Amino acid sequence: MIQKKKTTPKVVVIGGGTGSYTVLVGMKNLSVNLTSIVTMMDSGGSSGRLRDELGTLPPGDIRQAIVALSIDINTNLALRKLFDYRFTNGSGLEGHNFGNLFVGALTKTTGRMDKAVDAISKIFNVKGNVLPVTLDDSHLVAAYNDGEIIRGEHNIDEPKFRKTKRIKKVWLEPKAKAFPSALRAIQEADLIVLGPGDLFTSLIANLCVEGMAEQIRKSKAKKAYIVNLMTKFGQTDDFGAREHVKEIEKYLGAKLDFILINKEKLPADILERYKLEKGYPVIDNLEKNHYVIIRTDLLGTSPVKKIEGDTLKRSLIRHSPTKLAIVLYRILK
Amino acid sequence: MIQKKKTTPKVVVIGGGTGSYTVLVGMKNLSVNLTSIVTMMDSGGSSGRLRDELGTLPPGDIRQAIVALSIDINTNLALRKLFDYRFTNGSGLEGHNFGNLFVGALTKTTGRMDKAVDAISKIFNVKGNVLPVTLDDSHLVAAYNDGEIIRGEHNIDEPKFRKTKRIKKVWLEPKAKAFPSALRAIQEADLIVLGPGDLFTSLIANLCVEGMAEQIRKSKAKKAYIVNLMTKFGQTDDFGAREHVKEIEKYLGAKLDFILINKEKLPADILERYKLEKGYPVIDNLEKNHYVIIRTDLLGTSPVKKIEGDTLKRSLIRHSPTKLAIVLYRILK
Repeated sequence: MIQKKKTTPKVVVIGGGTGSYTVLVGMKNLSVNLTSIVTMMDSGGSSGRLRDELGTLPPGDIRQAIVALSIDINTNLALRKLFDYRFTNGSGLEGHNFGNLFVGALTKTTGRMDKAVDAISKIFNVKGNVLPVTLDDSHLVAAYNDGEIIRGEHNIDEPKFRKTKRIKKVWLEPKAKAFPSALRAIQEADLIVLGPGDLFTSLIANLCVEGMAEQIRKSKAKKAYIVNLMTKFGQTDDFGAREHVKEIEKYLGAKLDFILINKEKLPADILERYKLEKGYPVIDNLEKNHYVIIRTDLLGTSPVKKIEGDTLKRSLIRHSPTKLAIVLYRILK
Repeated sequence: MIQKKKTTPKVVVIGGGTGSYTVLVGMKNLSVNLTSIVTMMDSGGSSGRLRDELGTLPPGDIRQAIVALSIDINTNLALRKLFDYRFTNGSGLEGHNFGNLFVGALTKTTGRMDKAVDAISKIFNVKGNVLPVTLDDSHLVAAYNDGEIIRGEHNIDEPKFRKTKRIKKVWLEPKAKAFPSALRAIQEADLIVLGPGDLFTSLIANLCVEGMAEQIRKSKAKKAYIVNLMTKFGQTDDFGAREHVKEIEKYLGAKLDFILINKEKLPADILERYKLEKGYPVIDNLEKNHYVIIRTDLLGTSPVKKIEGDTLKRSLIRHSPTKLAIVLYRILK
């Protein structure tokens, strides 16, 4: 019994948003010990408003991870639907996500976000752990190649500028310390999964938290990165897979072991819609290197629906949770 | 086993707000089968706003009943605190009660308030049943002795007029049909408890729902009424206990069996504060009649605290849950 427990592999997924959601949904039914470490830098949409108005950490990425990891039993379906419910009417409620209010209000009443997450995880029968990357209130700042400096995740994610420019560096203001439980999970991990997700705002934001990169470097875990399907205006214009990997390794200060990249063709109509937002497929320009490149079909089939009342731009095409899980599980073995 | 089940007495508490809350809190630890039938006519505060903005039934009285009946176990404390949490900051969230948003959002996602209540009752380990008196969207209307007609529970509860006047009649617009489960509970009840609570807006509002008064009349249950401690401006000015009872019996079309009335002295400082809102102690002018009069100490000791962000007027002094429960339990036996 003890031996069996010892051999259950430990997987840590680092990121936020729909990227992590996809990985977690795929992995949760495998016999692995899952931990989701979630970015706390979100400053847009319902999360950003609650952050300003309640003075709590942003709840949106936590909410998505909880929904992803909640066990599929009948009694949970109504709750999951509720947790994802977005208010469409109501002056001040419009655009707010119920799950965000849930996490936000419970953070207020318990006084700490991690306690709120623990309580909600119990209600939702969450498999595994959801951990904020930090309990500090901190914002992402980006410096661009033309000298501009932009503060706040949302302003970087949906920039006001029109001209293509490049992020030279991102950092956190004020500095944030890693949540100790997150560091412990990384220390004990057999596999660390980074991405998919917006390169700077969802992924590297986590690596800027004091202690995170160092702990990942020290960890004996295999480190896998799932390359995004599309470039994102203002963050990864003209980036191929190689440039994505390079940026991550720069902030990590360590080398990645596995790079997962989709080789399935993207639907033409989706590509047309991305063009309107200056998003293009991420080219596979990876070359033989220190990492193992896994080129395979990773595309999700279910179309992504726009949720009424949502004010944020969301990805129109996503990875397949199952396809990702199969590849990641093979890496573990 | 079956016999034991048969002898567990069934108690139905009809009302809303803090009055029902007090009775439910007192009764929930007794070995009775409890049902709380809750008014759906609230139109003020957070409930009223959600009613307008979400187009759902008002969730506030449901929320209070759920909190009252949730079992006191450690894991529940954080949730109960959350459920009662009132947002104090945040433009559109200010004054909203988290529990109200919970019931409201779940009513939207499940499509029906009773389903929402069932789901939430499970989360909160509710002992007994919480049932909306109706699923119809209806408002209370009052006609006064000077000819004025006021629509909406909140406008009757906190009227704009300054002169003392009397309610001649209240009714619902549009008509509302009783929720079948509520009627069933009344049919099977051994004891029906009415009050305490605002006479017209919390109590008689329920009796105006089609089917309710008739079902109570037909029920073999003992019918007890708990007399309010204080009169309420615009509803029960100059009312003694006898006038309270008379109004209830008028809308009920039946006679009450037990009248519970407090004989404990009310604190002078509280009385001073009530005077500012034209509220006075309800005089015990009950005389020997068809009902049994139970005159005893029923006063609660814990002071009532104002909750930050609450925009409604609340009672400053309340009945003791335990003292009420002891008397009601004796009636049952």
